[in-house]
Amino acid sequence: MNTPQFSRIVIVGVGLIGGSFALALKRAGRVREVIGVGRQAKNLQQALALGVIDQAQPLEQAVKGADLILLAVPVAQTEAVLSVIAPQLEPHTLITDGGSTKQDVISAARRALGSKFVQFVPAHPIAGSDQSGATAAFAELYQDRHLILCPESDTPQAALQTVRTAWQACGAKITEMSAAQHDAVFAIASHLPHLLAFSYMNLVLQSPQREPALKLAGSGFRDFTRIAGANPEMWADIACANKAALGKDLQHFQALLQQLQQSIEGEDKAVLQAFFTEASQARQQWKI
Amino acid sequence: MNTPQFSRIVIVGVGLIGGSFALALKRAGRVREVIGVGRQAKNLQQALALGVIDQAQPLEQAVKGADLILLAVPVAQTEAVLSVIAPQLEPHTLITDGGSTKQDVISAARRALGSKFVQFVPAHPIAGSDQSGATAAFAELYQDRHLILCPESDTPQAALQTVRTAWQACGAKITEMSAAQHDAVFAIASHLPHLLAFSYMNLVLQSPQREPALKLAGSGFRDFTRIAGANPEMWADIACANKAALGKDLQHFQALLQQLQQSIEGEDKAVLQAFFTEASQARQQWKI
Repeated sequence: MNTPQFSRIVIVGVGLIGGSFALALKRAGRVREVIGVGRQAKNLQQALALGVIDQAQPLEQAVKGADLILLAVPVAQTEAVLSVIAPQLEPHTLITDGGSTKQDVISAARRALGSKFVQFVPAHPIAGSDQSGATAAFAELYQDRHLILCPESDTPQAALQTVRTAWQACGAKITEMSAAQHDAVFAIASHLPHLLAFSYMNLVLQSPQREPALKLAGSGFRDFTRIAGANPEMWADIACANKAALGKDLQHFQALLQQLQQSIEGEDKAVLQAFFTEASQARQQWKI
Repeated sequence: MNTPQFSRIVIVGVGLIGGSFALALKRAGRVREVIGVGRQAKNLQQALALGVIDQAQPLEQAVKGADLILLAVPVAQTEAVLSVIAPQLEPHTLITDGGSTKQDVISAARRALGSKFVQFVPAHPIAGSDQSGATAAFAELYQDRHLILCPESDTPQAALQTVRTAWQACGAKITEMSAAQHDAVFAIASHLPHLLAFSYMNLVLQSPQREPALKLAGSGFRDFTRIAGANPEMWADIACANKAALGKDLQHFQALLQQLQQSIEGEDKAVLQAFFTEASQARQQWKI
């Protein structure tokens, strides 16, 4: 039997993202011991009971002797958590994260870690669920899903390579891009649809037709609003963290809606049909 | 063995909606013979081969001797189709439809049918798919799905009752409401999300991030955009047919987006989190 790649991994935030990372690395035989860190005692107990983590420890204690630390907390907490970690951080320890935005996480990491920033390899797994907490974690979450790595110019190749192999061991397909491009891509591919789904759901709640609409809505509504069930704290963080890119996308989207509304008011069916056809064909060709 | 309720049913438009109605009534033993009418010879051949219909006939011929006619064509074609049917329509024949809007369909039916309008019982099954055509039809489409009936003040109770039992035999749960309320409810519960999904998909296509966004998008994108794959002609019709209610909803939605954008620009996390929490809790409590 091979020696596991990592002797000790620390998961800060043992939810869907953190817990699934732990389970995937355990399943792949890559880790000897997983330490969980979290705010909620009950969640950590469940994580222990489910074998997601082997021990729960306070953050300061957990990081001692760690080979790899995964930050899986709302992005706005990055700086606070890394500021606690920084003084304890041993030279051989690497850090990665699962945050949905990258420029703000990198800025926070630079402020908190200083010269130790080179031990941090920013990552974003494109995997999620409307379920959360340790009980939602499963080893296959990252299987065949995309994972984005956003190394900076001062990120050492060796650190990048070690973190890459850890995510690959979880089954993820790795793509590298700059943090700026990452944030622009996911503003439009993920963050904006979440904002639209939250907003649409609230529109329904504010409507005089609220009751029959919620009673009679069908499978289109079900799928369109699924992401409106996502974690509010996490998404408030993401919206603020990526506000520059999101601001542009929101503006463009409103301009499209304005045009659409004019075409509907004018009953301009040719324009409407062309607009819907473009969307429909692209969607039918798309594959996850 | 009981005599089937309907000796001869005519399906005008043998697609997902029309074909599934035929299959469901056949499965329930309610119909002796199903006649299909349609624009596309290939689709009618497939419908015959799959046993969705028993014969394909031209519209004028098909309606002779029919007990029940289902209109399952884009709503804008209602008047043209009913104008062909009207002169042939025998006194015992009832008509129902599957259109997603009701006020415009009823106006069209009054114009086309004149005094025979009392033979028409407006309906809207809340069932669909991004698949279309006779090959997409299946007998279970309406099982446990809502069906809205919008009788008018001059709709005879006997006609309403016969059409109700036909849809019930397909497995549908019947709700009655006025056409005006129907259109307001489905503007917000179904039509608006389709417009938003089409518009969002086009935003992505127009984005400089189009290529990586489509490559890296995950399951949130998949579900949010599923209805953007819907039939463009049908949805151009619906958008125009329900433009009054949709215009109001589009305006309210844009007002919500404006507020949201301001909260993001001001990084007002408390407001954002409250806004997302309301949506998230409502969505988690919702059940189809």
